[in-house]
Amino acid sequence: MVVFLNGQFVSEAGAVVSVNDRGFMYGDGLFETMRVVNGRPFRMAQHLERMTRGADFLKIKPPFTPRELEKFSAQLIGQNQMPDAILRVTLTRGPGKRGYTPDAESEPTIVMTLHAAPLQENPVEWSLVTSSFRIPAADPLSPFKTTSKILNVMARAEAAEKGADEALLINTNGEVAETASGNLFWVYGEQICTTPTGRGVLPGITRAIVLEICQMLGLQTNKRVIKPEALRNSQGLFVTQSAFGIVPIASFDGEPVAFSPLVDQISSAYNDMLKREAV
Amino acid sequence: MVVFLNGQFVSEAGAVVSVNDRGFMYGDGLFETMRVVNGRPFRMAQHLERMTRGADFLKIKPPFTPRELEKFSAQLIGQNQMPDAILRVTLTRGPGKRGYTPDAESEPTIVMTLHAAPLQENPVEWSLVTSSFRIPAADPLSPFKTTSKILNVMARAEAAEKGADEALLINTNGEVAETASGNLFWVYGEQICTTPTGRGVLPGITRAIVLEICQMLGLQTNKRVIKPEALRNSQGLFVTQSAFGIVPIASFDGEPVAFSPLVDQISSAYNDMLKREAV
Repeated sequence: MVVFLNGQFVSEAGAVVSVNDRGFMYGDGLFETMRVVNGRPFRMAQHLERMTRGADFLKIKPPFTPRELEKFSAQLIGQNQMPDAILRVTLTRGPGKRGYTPDAESEPTIVMTLHAAPLQENPVEWSLVTSSFRIPAADPLSPFKTTSKILNVMARAEAAEKGADEALLINTNGEVAETASGNLFWVYGEQICTTPTGRGVLPGITRAIVLEICQMLGLQTNKRVIKPEALRNSQGLFVTQSAFGIVPIASFDGEPVAFSPLVDQISSAYNDMLKREAV
Repeated sequence: MVVFLNGQFVSEAGAVVSVNDRGFMYGDGLFETMRVVNGRPFRMAQHLERMTRGADFLKIKPPFTPRELEKFSAQLIGQNQMPDAILRVTLTRGPGKRGYTPDAESEPTIVMTLHAAPLQENPVEWSLVTSSFRIPAADPLSPFKTTSKILNVMARAEAAEKGADEALLINTNGEVAETASGNLFWVYGEQICTTPTGRGVLPGITRAIVLEICQMLGLQTNKRVIKPEALRNSQGLFVTQSAFGIVPIASFDGEPVAFSPLVDQISSAYNDMLKREAV
């Protein structure tokens, strides 16, 4: 496996960073994950746009432009002969001093790695459980995908212990926010609903695509603040995230979830888009 | 500079971890920072105890016992000839798979690094400003010092932009919690007050020592929930943290802070303890 590290293509064994990298010391960085189909990272421009906004906020200066990263990612995919994969891009503040205050002079670290793609032939369906971890409802950091993700790791670990696949994250107001790895949608009557951003919710790329798809299909959408109990009245639940796309929820806190044919409709439209844009 | 990495003493240039280390990918780790005086890390046992509790919670199996780490730290200090320093211990879940769910099989990474000590001859006094970042009031992770510290980094960056040294963190209930790098104490009448743990507050080692010292000195202590406005009525403010010890606050949100002689008394008792235990 070849890894892209700071402008070079290196072996996996050589893909290392200093123990003084601020990403390792403090989770002082950002990342993006995207699906590679037919050699092309799906919606890479949108992912890198979010990363750029995050880098602005964190005051990390990316060493390469989005265009350069797109070129390097094509080379990475070619060298590894992995046209069907998951691409992760990581940008950290780079090696720096001990102590939280960031140093304006530090040289950022940029990494791109490829990972096995989920099997398309093996469509997933997840069980969802409510996490005991709460995310802040008003957090200036929530629009950005930082590498400080211990809460998501622990929420997933807790779900796994209960035999579930995914964790539902509630914000400190007691409202549904998102899941450990994506955004939540629910079907209510003929409406496709999701939570509004800005209450602890990451503005997911796949979330935005699903809102696009609904418009294309003439499905009504609704961004709503909702309490977790109210999800029980939904006619279907699904998670959107970049690695797996659209993942129907089969059970929620141990109870079976109704399945709406609208979820299938959105899912096929998404898969069509994935193939269409990969040409 | 020699670094301790996974049981070996390596050069700083060789002190590297995989880009697939979960610490680098997700802030999936823990750390401790302590003052080394006369070759001895101050209260290392208490720091490693907190790290052990954190490792239990995160289900990371430390590759060495606290006793072994104490022995290795003595060798590290000797090899670097740095009897007066700051020691950082980092424990992460080690190299692992992409995706939040932790793998029970992963082999943890353990690192110890030495850093320059603050100059004792140059006693610090900090200016404190209220952060715009809020920490969750009820967070099962707050008793542990994880490496997911982007909020602390950003709070410090925001403070630095305002020309201040330290950031006061308010919890999602609007109560005083802690500072970006330590715990907050205030003097009210003859009482030495601090926030109770368990409302987003890290149980600081130096905080516990100050409570010990107050008992020794016959000073009354009080663990109180307080709103930030009420801090203006205090007769003195100070931050406790492991690198700098006891740091008096000279100004809070631009206003000068009263200075209580009790802060000096506690500070000298702390410095005496630092020297006494280093023999």
